[in-house]
Amino acid sequence: MSWLPSERVLSIQSHVVFGYVGGKAAVFPLQCLGYDVDVVNTVNFSNHAGYGRSGGTKTSADELRQIFEAMEQNELLRPARILTGYIPGGEALSAVKELVAKLKHQKPTIMYLLDPVMGDAGRLYVSPDVVPVYRAMLPLATIITPNWFEVEVLTEIKLKDLSSLQKALEILHTRYQVPNVVISSIPLTPWLWSALPPSIRPENEKSHLICLASSLPTPQVPSSSTSVVHAQCVPLFPGYFSGVGDLFSSLLLAHFHPDEHPQNLTANCLSEAASQALTKTHAILQITHGQALTLPEDERLPSDDELDKAEPLRRTRRMRGRELALIRGQDILRGVNIRSLREMRIWRDFWATQ
Amino acid sequence: MSWLPSERVLSIQSHVVFGYVGGKAAVFPLQCLGYDVDVVNTVNFSNHAGYGRSGGTKTSADELRQIFEAMEQNELLRPARILTGYIPGGEALSAVKELVAKLKHQKPTIMYLLDPVMGDAGRLYVSPDVVPVYRAMLPLATIITPNWFEVEVLTEIKLKDLSSLQKALEILHTRYQVPNVVISSIPLTPWLWSALPPSIRPENEKSHLICLASSLPTPQVPSSSTSVVHAQCVPLFPGYFSGVGDLFSSLLLAHFHPDEHPQNLTANCLSEAASQALTKTHAILQITHGQALTLPEDERLPSDDELDKAEPLRRTRRMRGRELALIRGQDILRGVNIRSLREMRIWRDFWATQ
Repeated sequence: MSWLPSERVLSIQSHVVFGYVGGKAAVFPLQCLGYDVDVVNTVNFSNHAGYGRSGGTKTSADELRQIFEAMEQNELLRPARILTGYIPGGEALSAVKELVAKLKHQKPTIMYLLDPVMGDAGRLYVSPDVVPVYRAMLPLATIITPNWFEVEVLTEIKLKDLSSLQKALEILHTRYQVPNVVISSIPLTPWLWSALPPSIRPENEKSHLICLASSLPTPQVPSSSTSVVHAQCVPLFPGYFSGVGDLFSSLLLAHFHPDEHPQNLTANCLSEAASQALTKTHAILQITHGQALTLPEDERLPSDDELDKAEPLRRTRRMRGRELALIRGQDILRGVNIRSLREMRIWRDFWATQ
Repeated sequence: MSWLPSERVLSIQSHVVFGYVGGKAAVFPLQCLGYDVDVVNTVNFSNHAGYGRSGGTKTSADELRQIFEAMEQNELLRPARILTGYIPGGEALSAVKELVAKLKHQKPTIMYLLDPVMGDAGRLYVSPDVVPVYRAMLPLATIITPNWFEVEVLTEIKLKDLSSLQKALEILHTRYQVPNVVISSIPLTPWLWSALPPSIRPENEKSHLICLASSLPTPQVPSSSTSVVHAQCVPLFPGYFSGVGDLFSSLLLAHFHPDEHPQNLTANCLSEAASQALTKTHAILQITHGQALTLPEDERLPSDDELDKAEPLRRTRRMRGRELALIRGQDILRGVNIRSLREMRIWRDFWATQ
């Protein structure tokens, strides 16, 4: 595999013993794609929170600083790329912020993908004190990958129509100086469905998610609000899968190569990377979904809190059957036998549409 | 890759952010070979101890027990195989011992590879209180992979001739009821060189290591001391590489398939697995050695404590250049393009020779 890059990625996110979220979802794909990954664990838990119970501890800000300091003394802080994900508290996040700021100061071309993992579907699952720290970190990022809810939290804009989406993106690009924003897994609401250009709009708004990439044409001067927007819709699998965002972000970072095509617009490199990440993530979900279907019927139905309360292990077994099939699907991660790309398409009139 | 097994391995060993020792050396190879790995970190350090300085913390026995308990409650303790490595203290090791004993009680066919990581070249690098705990754990193991020094510590036999080696193996097989013992990286001392049968003996005793696998013919009745012994010599690369034993043990476990060939002697399955592990480990070392040769001359020379003292970063840089090239060599781990196997050969008269 002579095409393999040999860059280092510094990944800072959660660790779980069982299953695939955080680092367990992100590190293996990066390694398969040829990256040496420096792996910092912000928590050490038995399993993800979806199981209801978990054991283990969070890494304190002091412990993180000790690790970073030893690495600095040993000249081991040499990443070409940084990836940060789940960091549950403001103090620990501040330690990460200091590190990223220092690395970026030493090497301004360092590529930083910031996934501001805070919550989903209207609910925060980190301490609220991380929110201002993430806002302060945004100007350090090359790419951010918030979900729908995280865009709302960061920008304090309720996304209810195209104009509020435009406003939120403008805030991220101009106030927070983020050159590249990728929002994956956006629910395809009726207003979004009708706003989409025909080349992107699926026949049926239900059972689809949309991925949107917005990129400033000249990231060196991030002052323009008229970004280049690409989008693509993917069919939705029923029920919730954990770690999907972590997998998507790692693949997006792995496939983003603006330096290899300097003649290309960054927006095109970003949409190419998002196409790869979307295609591979969707293919992994397809295998995972197929695996979940082999569960007994009462364990594979979507969440049902009442039944879960009566029989807590029902929830656990459902979760277990829905862990991402990263190992079984590793050929997908490597790009073997991928028949067709879910290609991101340009949304030409995004900023013109009201 | 339809041949991929989909078994779970529970791996319990160290974690380092940078480089490849402990879990960082063992987990990726297992994943590449199709295993879902449950990853328990017994320490969270910035880098391995060879760098001189490191930051981070050990996982306490209490923290390990919390993780194991949550996994048990969530029905997530489902490994078909267990791999344990570096566990620096007796209390933490006792927590692991309780877990392994429980899993083995629940499922007596569980396969357990115990790597009694304690030290090397005459020096312990764990707390001495782990030694009696390891001795008590030996009867739980399917395979153990001590190095030369660890055999001496466990058996309290100084290995100075063939008869002391026979005695040590007999103690491991009979007193401690270990069915399979694999000792890799044995220095080929003159007495060992002359004891080897011509089919295994290399022309030159210098610059070779020997790997020895000793397997009881009927592991169900581990009372016989006359095991089947296989061995093979491999050329030695100059200088020390960290994590080699961790990589070897994970590959040995990954390739050990006694259930697939029930007509085969366990000894043959073990020697097949050891041949694969030896071949792949040696090929990874070859790439790593080539990579180390690209360092400036004063950083690639073997260890020199005086020069290191004057310039501590010299040691660090030398270590950095000698981190296992697991990512660059991942095709090797998967068995792609392996031209010839370093095949373990039977040592017929091992027990007859005096």
